[in-house]
Amino acid sequence: MSIKIGILGYGNLGRGVEAAIKKNDDTVLKAVYTRRAPDTVNINTQGVEVKTVDELEKGNEDIDVLVICGGSATDLPEMTPKFASLYNVIDSFDTHARVPEHFKNVDEAAKKNGRTGIISCGWDPGMFSLNRLYASAILPDGKDYTFWGRGVSQGHSDAVRRIDGVKDCRQYTIPVPEALEKVRNGENPELTTRQKHTRECFVVAEDKADKARIENEIKTMPNYFADYDTVVHFITEEEMKRDHSTLPHGGSVIYSGETSDGVKHVIEYSLKLDSNPEFTGSVIIAFARAVYRLNREGQFGAKTVFDIAPAYISPLSGEEIRSHLL
Amino acid sequence: MSIKIGILGYGNLGRGVEAAIKKNDDTVLKAVYTRRAPDTVNINTQGVEVKTVDELEKGNEDIDVLVICGGSATDLPEMTPKFASLYNVIDSFDTHARVPEHFKNVDEAAKKNGRTGIISCGWDPGMFSLNRLYASAILPDGKDYTFWGRGVSQGHSDAVRRIDGVKDCRQYTIPVPEALEKVRNGENPELTTRQKHTRECFVVAEDKADKARIENEIKTMPNYFADYDTVVHFITEEEMKRDHSTLPHGGSVIYSGETSDGVKHVIEYSLKLDSNPEFTGSVIIAFARAVYRLNREGQFGAKTVFDIAPAYISPLSGEEIRSHLL
Repeated sequence: MSIKIGILGYGNLGRGVEAAIKKNDDTVLKAVYTRRAPDTVNINTQGVEVKTVDELEKGNEDIDVLVICGGSATDLPEMTPKFASLYNVIDSFDTHARVPEHFKNVDEAAKKNGRTGIISCGWDPGMFSLNRLYASAILPDGKDYTFWGRGVSQGHSDAVRRIDGVKDCRQYTIPVPEALEKVRNGENPELTTRQKHTRECFVVAEDKADKARIENEIKTMPNYFADYDTVVHFITEEEMKRDHSTLPHGGSVIYSGETSDGVKHVIEYSLKLDSNPEFTGSVIIAFARAVYRLNREGQFGAKTVFDIAPAYISPLSGEEIRSHLL
Repeated sequence: MSIKIGILGYGNLGRGVEAAIKKNDDTVLKAVYTRRAPDTVNINTQGVEVKTVDELEKGNEDIDVLVICGGSATDLPEMTPKFASLYNVIDSFDTHARVPEHFKNVDEAAKKNGRTGIISCGWDPGMFSLNRLYASAILPDGKDYTFWGRGVSQGHSDAVRRIDGVKDCRQYTIPVPEALEKVRNGENPELTTRQKHTRECFVVAEDKADKARIENEIKTMPNYFADYDTVVHFITEEEMKRDHSTLPHGGSVIYSGETSDGVKHVIEYSLKLDSNPEFTGSVIIAFARAVYRLNREGQFGAKTVFDIAPAYISPLSGEEIRSHLL
């Protein structure tokens, strides 16, 4: 018995989710939903229909979990609550500052209609969040540091692409090497946002766009860029294709704390990812399994990764995980 | 309102749990229980009683969670099920091969009496297990490797100390450097147990003990040593005190997997610990919080770290963790 997955939005993340479904025998892709004309969208799974988002809105699609692949800036705040009233849902909402509001909206819609939804799932927010929580609960007298990159942030690239006059963008997040070294040494430095990372944007602008305005809009964008030193490069479409066609990423959550005077411990969780969207899609599909199970148990409403007992994301039984993974 | 903790067994782990309680404002040490004469046991917390295990067996002690600090070879298989019928319990049972049996015994005792228990909690089994589960659920087409050390294994030291004629032992677990390097490079090598780690034992023998017999008993001990290359050194009590008085440890769970052809990801969770028992005690106290909460919700029976939604181990509210850690 397979978990029937629908994908809404067929960009990088949608394709990453599709790749993950192929690696999980207990999940099956039922349909891809798009705001584009369906016959213009060619997907990587044979025999699966591409449908319009209008079909989805009727609320009768035969899917167990809808994976909503949209941008956090404008798509998800509207789409996830809307579809949480019709289907079980999961998204990768990554605007940290607006999580409480998004959670509340999804929670209300889902509870009212007997649905279950996980928001902000992926690796950050997601696996990195989990590691911040586990480490801080274990070592309350300690401090966490999160470093991202060097890698392409989809959320930040997406935010830049929404600026008027921008055709395409790749945004690289880069840890400041001196900061990373101090943290790994357990020095527990005080670091501002700006001292931890720099941001680098490669932007393809439309022909007659005002590049100075675009650069200024990027550098002053709240939540995304305003607190960082950001470098903006304008490049051609050819350069974009040649030099920035893959989406690698990675990073580390490093936590150090003491359990008694002078007795120190360092916990590090690190990722080296060839493809951010394929890894994010893989996290989402594992947690989609939890969405499905929780809904069948009658656990309705919005959840985050913090609310999911790890056993729920594994295809194995309790006996199997205790025997093989404990 | 504090969570009232009892500690059964005041060795290295018991003291580690005691240290952790001091770092967690919502927990309080109510009593230490010992099989020794209570007036011979001096604990590090002023104003807390040391009592006999007989008191505990009466079943009337005013504690929310009993932390059972005993050896996995003989203590815990008997003690945890017994006390799970009287109190909520948590232990650090670490004989991987006997987990299913131990789980069943604790589960039956706890369920029959409306108690909740977590077994096999610490960092391995425990945090390392969680990382094996998360990684394998996210990247089903992959492989996990666990490396321990260099550090002192309490479980293995304890197992050696139970051999007739052994006064004391420190067992160091040491990763084989070539193996570690291959795994970090993502080469996914096939490694036998023996190719991954060596074991080194520093043993203080009783005066007239047969050292050849002791060495043989160590090297052939099933589960603990039989599958490893083990070096045994006999040393004096003075050397033990001088060279082996701290209990550092650490290690890594490294997982690599593909999400599509040639697209690879490496996940690493690593620990560098000044004190294995203090870190283990800190993991246990975080999960004792979950034991307490689950029991109040009526979730009875045996659990492992896999069954605990991460939010349950944090002292913060759902709103707080979503705002600050997601």
